Amino acid sequence: MISKNQIKFISSLQQKKFRKEHGLFIAEGEKVCRDLIESGWVVQSVFMTEEFRKEKFSRWTKKVSYEIVSEKELEKISLLSTPQQIIAIAEIPAPVFKSELIRNELTLMLDGIKDPGNLGTILRIADWFGLGNVICSENCADAFNPKTVQATMGSLFRVNIFYKPLREVFHELSGKNIPVYGTLLSGSDIYKQKLSSHGIILIGSESHGISDELLPFITSAISIPSFSNSSGKKADSLNAAMAAAIVCSEFRRRS
Amino acid sequence: MISKNQIKFISSLQQKKFRKEHGLFIAEGEKVCRDLIESGWVVQSVFMTEEFRKEKFSRWTKKVSYEIVSEKELEKISLLSTPQQIIAIAEIPAPVFKSELIRNELTLMLDGIKDPGNLGTILRIADWFGLGNVICSENCADAFNPKTVQATMGSLFRVNIFYKPLREVFHELSGKNIPVYGTLLSGSDIYKQKLSSHGIILIGSESHGISDELLPFITSAISIPSFSNSSGKKADSLNAAMAAAIVCSEFRRRS
Repeated sequence: MISKNQIKFISSLQQKKFRKEHGLFIAEGEKVCRDLIESGWVVQSVFMTEEFRKEKFSRWTKKVSYEIVSEKELEKISLLSTPQQIIAIAEIPAPVFKSELIRNELTLMLDGIKDPGNLGTILRIADWFGLGNVICSENCADAFNPKTVQATMGSLFRVNIFYKPLREVFHELSGKNIPVYGTLLSGSDIYKQKLSSHGIILIGSESHGISDELLPFITSAISIPSFSNSSGKKADSLNAAMAAAIVCSEFRRRS
Repeated sequence: MISKNQIKFISSLQQKKFRKEHGLFIAEGEKVCRDLIESGWVVQSVFMTEEFRKEKFSRWTKKVSYEIVSEKELEKISLLSTPQQIIAIAEIPAPVFKSELIRNELTLMLDGIKDPGNLGTILRIADWFGLGNVICSENCADAFNPKTVQATMGSLFRVNIFYKPLREVFHELSGKNIPVYGTLLSGSDIYKQKLSSHGIILIGSESHGISDELLPFITSAISIPSFSNSSGKKADSLNAAMAAAIVCSEFRRRS
């Protein structure tokens, strides 16, 4: 049984303020919870229905202690419109950023991605293309927002996410000869540009692009050319997650 | 002033049933309404605030008749959580599919994309990469769903969208030597595959992929390779919109 206090506590984790205070977040559903448990992250508690335990959990190789709850109880703590049969509460990790970490890697840097779903999609792309580190400006959406957690489909647990003032990161990296590729509408055609197998890919927010204060750190401005054939108006931008997908694909294709 | 009946009528257009019955849909906000009006589509009515008229609409080159309403009135007909200052009601076009239309073109075909936001994003990609025609299975989300309309950011008005049973389309195209590229996890590496400058790119639904009944029509199965470097579990799929973005980019890059 889940007590009223537990329900209240778990529901509070919808809010960033309480996630920060307790250092905990919520994961829901088979795929996300399974990936979480297999990731080795510290899981604090797991709630599942008896049906889920019998049909799914019993076949998982990695085990964890859990509590059986009724579907009705699960509904009370679920944040989804269609509640899944398993919910886990886990600790938010606090990876420490060091410039050595990304020196020889391809790294995604996000400047003001505010939509939780977009952020989740971008983390999934980072995972798919093997970018192990994502650096977010402090005004990005919170990666442990339930919407982001769901949108990552488990990729959240396979990518290091750092929240840091991006200027600070650039200062730490200065003199280390790390190329910085910024996606700008005025950038050169990415298909024709020389791309390094390491460096930073900087993606700006959809509404405002890359902040002015970061422009001086860009060593190569890149853009995805439009092939729009409509005679009049054209698409004037791609959304940030789409741009990230295409850019990461192009870097990896050549590596 | 907007009458109660008008409010009721406009609100009804949130539902597919009423959009179909009246052949009308709703567009909201500066970007989407401006692109709609410039598209030449038949606009039935436009509501805007006086402020919007003065500051924005007065500078538009293409004019249209409109009604001035208060912000409060606009709120009543808006479907958005943050209502925009302009709303337009327009006719849903009914383009007729002919195989000649796509014979020498690159065309996107969507099998069961059910999320309205994903569909909108994909239409935006089609527009960006100059794919003028998108063929949707009948169980795809409705392109005139308000969420889709908003997600397309105006691209909806620059792409022909056909809803048709996909089997039927393939039968119409048979013998016309049109390559069909299907995105399948088991497909060959798209980066190494020969790609034609015309043909069909078939994208399956995220949860079920491409329907079994369509598999026989695929002439080349393609996949986007994963570069995931995590030792254990990996990302096991990209979402459908991401896949569409990367695939379209790869086709256009080579054309």
